[in-house]
Amino acid sequence: MLVNSRLVRIEWGDCDSAGIVYYPRYLAIFDASTTALIERALGMTKHQYLRTYDFGGHPLVNTHVRFFIPARFGDDVRVETSVMAFHRSSFDVRHRLHKGDRLAVEGFETRVWVRGDPTSPQGMKSTPLPDEVIERLSGH
Amino acid sequence: MLVNSRLVRIEWGDCDSAGIVYYPRYLAIFDASTTALIERALGMTKHQYLRTYDFGGHPLVNTHVRFFIPARFGDDVRVETSVMAFHRSSFDVRHRLHKGDRLAVEGFETRVWVRGDPTSPQGMKSTPLPDEVIERLSGH
Amino acid sequence: MLVNSRLVRIEWGDCDSAGIVYYPRYLAIFDASTTALIERALGMTKHQYLRTYDFGGHPLVNTHVRFFIPARFGDDVRVETSVMAFHRSSFDVRHRLHKGDRLAVEGFETRVWVRGDPTSPQGMKSTPLPDEVIERLSGH
Amino acid sequence: MLVNSRLVRIEWGDCDSAGIVYYPRYLAIFDASTTALIERALGMTKHQYLRTYDFGGHPLVNTHVRFFIPARFGDDVRVETSVMAFHRSSFDVRHRLHKGDRLAVEGFETRVWVRGDPTSPQGMKSTPLPDEVIERLSGH
Repeated sequence: MLVNSRLVRIEWGDCDSAGIVYYPRYLAIFDASTTALIERALGMTKHQYLRTYDFGGHPLVNTHVRFFIPARFGDDVRVETSVMAFHRSSFDVRHRLHKGDRLAVEGFETRVWVRGDPTSPQGMKSTPLPDEVIERLSGH
Repeated sequence: MLVNSRLVRIEWGDCDSAGIVYYPRYLAIFDASTTALIERALGMTKHQYLRTYDFGGHPLVNTHVRFFIPARFGDDVRVETSVMAFHRSSFDVRHRLHKGDRLAVEGFETRVWVRGDPTSPQGMKSTPLPDEVIERLSGH
Repeated sequence: MLVNSRLVRIEWGDCDSAGIVYYPRYLAIFDASTTALIERALGMTKHQYLRTYDFGGHPLVNTHVRFFIPARFGDDVRVETSVMAFHRSSFDVRHRLHKGDRLAVEGFETRVWVRGDPTSPQGMKSTPLPDEVIERLSGH
Repeated sequence: MLVNSRLVRIEWGDCDSAGIVYYPRYLAIFDASTTALIERALGMTKHQYLRTYDFGGHPLVNTHVRFFIPARFGDDVRVETSVMAFHRSSFDVRHRLHKGDRLAVEGFETRVWVRGDPTSPQGMKSTPLPDEVIERLSGH
């Protein structure tokens, strides 16, 4: 599978009164990491791939996050992201966030590939992932 | 078990470009819901219970969230929160977020009870939950 | 002018490593307060008034915020919001956030009334505020 | 004056239902930009400079932000930050956020230099900026 790695600086505003990352912020970091993975795989920005694939996004069905080591503001953490499995119209993503060489947070997501306009009255419709997208995310 | 129920208005700023709640916001809603549960059980604010129990907070060890129905700005959702199980120095929390009478999002958390100053060099130390806290959260 | 007053609980997640509200959160509180004022004036939710007035929102042109007293998690603050002036296609809003009986934060906003779909290629177009909206916000 | 320039990727989660940056996010971007400026001037991280100067942070007294052009997710914006003036125990910062070669958002902040522990009962005490800090931020 294609693995995308990116560095994230933990900012003051990411942290709570205990001086450690307010954990919902990790979910936002992971969301951006999923986007970064797909952008790299497809060679286009999210703005572009939403248009190219008549695509309403990749909303979460579920997520599971485990927290091992707290991170603090000023920390530069590294997030490694890859798809773990493809299903008919969904896919599983794993994020491994490292502080130095230690695994600090690990996140799993199941996301649905959605077509059309999610703001329309009919809402969001899942649709099979395009073969090309699967191929590129697989690193072929 | 004691169940705390609270109403949350979904705000414009909780939503993303697809017009639905940006999912990390649910984690923040759940975090506030855990606090609200403990505040109600103990009859004090978080500020007070942190002092009373020489207590550094209840950081997450892991969380698992399942998303069934998207919520939009202007929605008033109801969150029901209760402890599902107590362990030696941790506890499991469940949140059920309803939109009307339908379950929209369900979240599970395992949190550690932590003593002392989390900003100290020694970091956070887990400690058994006080009996009184267990009793109150159990609804006795 | 119509004044809307609302209570806001400062949550753990609103605060930063210094234990006080991370100031961009005040802007989010004020944004929700502007919406609450308009919702009350018009007797409909933002979702409804966006549709009713073929309306793309009320984006900011500028904002000015002054910080007098820090607020901490667990504080219940009261925000009083009203329109200070109407211009051709914009309006000025003032928020006064109180902690107890002391003014803690004061915010001013100039917002544009925008028509149509802000996500369309043509972007957002300012348009005169409907007379009815002006009347209601004036408290007549 | 020393000018720090940094690139910021606008993420999906920075945007609201109108598809443009939810404006409180600009304040968070500016807050991180002030930190980045001071870090560069002093050659240390915020974590380090808080310790070095027995320093409680640089909370805002006021901020003024003007919005000219909306930014969307996927945009890479450039923020130029510098101190505009030093006062006895406060300083004025200006941020100019560019989208391509156009000024999109401009922010001004007045921040106080604060000593000691802001979480202590005595609260925060303003103190004159160290000469060395003034010199470095001035670009000497």
